Amino acid sequence: MPIQTVAIVGVGLIGGSFALALRASGFSGRILGVSSPRTLDAALKREVIDEGLPIAEAVPQADLVYLSQPISRILDILPRVRELAKPSALVTDAGSTKAQIVEQAARHFNENPWFLGGHPMAGKEKRGVELAGAGLFQDATYVLTPAGGKLPEATIIAEFVRYLEEIGSRVSVMPADEHDRIVAWTSHLPQLISTALAAAIADGLDEQDSSDVAGPALRDMTRLGESSFEMWRDVLGTNQTNVRQALDAYIQRLERLRQDAGGPLTEQEFEKAGIFRNNQ
Amino acid sequence: MPIQTVAIVGVGLIGGSFALALRASGFSGRILGVSSPRTLDAALKREVIDEGLPIAEAVPQADLVYLSQPISRILDILPRVRELAKPSALVTDAGSTKAQIVEQAARHFNENPWFLGGHPMAGKEKRGVELAGAGLFQDATYVLTPAGGKLPEATIIAEFVRYLEEIGSRVSVMPADEHDRIVAWTSHLPQLISTALAAAIADGLDEQDSSDVAGPALRDMTRLGESSFEMWRDVLGTNQTNVRQALDAYIQRLERLRQDAGGPLTEQEFEKAGIFRNNQ
Repeated sequence: MPIQTVAIVGVGLIGGSFALALRASGFSGRILGVSSPRTLDAALKREVIDEGLPIAEAVPQADLVYLSQPISRILDILPRVRELAKPSALVTDAGSTKAQIVEQAARHFNENPWFLGGHPMAGKEKRGVELAGAGLFQDATYVLTPAGGKLPEATIIAEFVRYLEEIGSRVSVMPADEHDRIVAWTSHLPQLISTALAAAIADGLDEQDSSDVAGPALRDMTRLGESSFEMWRDVLGTNQTNVRQALDAYIQRLERLRQDAGGPLTEQEFEKAGIFRNNQ
Repeated sequence: MPIQTVAIVGVGLIGGSFALALRASGFSGRILGVSSPRTLDAALKREVIDEGLPIAEAVPQADLVYLSQPISRILDILPRVRELAKPSALVTDAGSTKAQIVEQAARHFNENPWFLGGHPMAGKEKRGVELAGAGLFQDATYVLTPAGGKLPEATIIAEFVRYLEEIGSRVSVMPADEHDRIVAWTSHLPQLISTALAAAIADGLDEQDSSDVAGPALRDMTRLGESSFEMWRDVLGTNQTNVRQALDAYIQRLERLRQDAGGPLTEQEFEKAGIFRNNQ
């Protein structure tokens, strides 16, 4: 039985973009939205969703339930979604950390309905359905974190994966804890580094100085500083151990660079960085 | 007497772009280049310069001598340029740190010829005359660091400043040591942060992981990791005290973020970063 009705719970940048991408890739079923009245208005105006409904009306109709709220809301709502969803449904999420969500889902879900954790590696510094677009997932990695680390053989899961590929994303399957360890390095560490750089310069320099004598490098390196803490509170809070480990290793490197200040250790670091970039 | 002949000493990305920008802004005099035979060939082919000459032939003809070599070469060559230059000439440089160059120049130059330190806040991760372009200085800050912190009232200096404005740069005048303190924060710190991030991820993760699960944020934050140490050796080596101070303050912030890991201090840091970005 193919996916005919999709419920997007949390119609923001990610949920809205998923809806638009699904439609652009040829999905002809219904797309229901669950969000605040203001967001639903905006989503309906932009034709992101077909209908806005309360969760108790949307989820029971859906073959695919797409949870794209903040992580703490997903953790809270999972038991309720389990109660409301059809036994034949697939429930998935788009939270940026996976271990706690997958653990919480395992307490409530078995096969009917299925739960499958996901993380589209796409996003912007800004949020909201106003910025949603069908191209957001194009060429982006979409991590799936099934319990046990392997995708179950189920028709609805195969169909969901096919849609992910049709909207242009590269599906990557791995255990939730491995995902969280990797994103601590590739996403959470860069975010904290950028935020701290912007804050350090704000404290270390006069405003005039920093805006006069700042090149494109500084603008790039502080761009993530625009991200809202509202989202990052949950991300960092649900990945503390991995984030601390990554920061620890990073601080040690900076300490060595500070002592060396342009000497042979700095040269080695530039070489290693150059090799890393060439392999990307 | 207007500037009729320009000698570019070091026809790389910056020197070549200055020549092209000068020409594009209507400069109708001669542009001489001093560089390796290979670079002069490339510069002549791209019509970046009119003629390639040894320094002993180029500098004595020039009204404006533009030193755009690595900092250590500029430091070495200043006494010789002083000997070769016409008394009516202006000698300027494009080195990324200014205190040591201005100090060295003060030992050799007085008014005839003039020396004026400069730093165009423009560049790329890659080098070479092949990448030079007339638009490189457009909307970029061009810092001038006259001894004493104020531009001398001299016709040739006024004319040079007018050309800088005509090629699209925003001229900013400040003492050399102030420049070096600011760029330690706005340029050298971001560079070291980016290099260390790329190197940390290369060490902390498998190659496969880091290229699969990496978003645009990581690509931006490690882009400066492509910079060559060849150039940065001089930059960091001639600004060690300021670089160490900036790194020190930055490391302390990261230490606090590591302990806090998503708590109230992290929230404050995000707020400060957001305000900084909004003021840019």
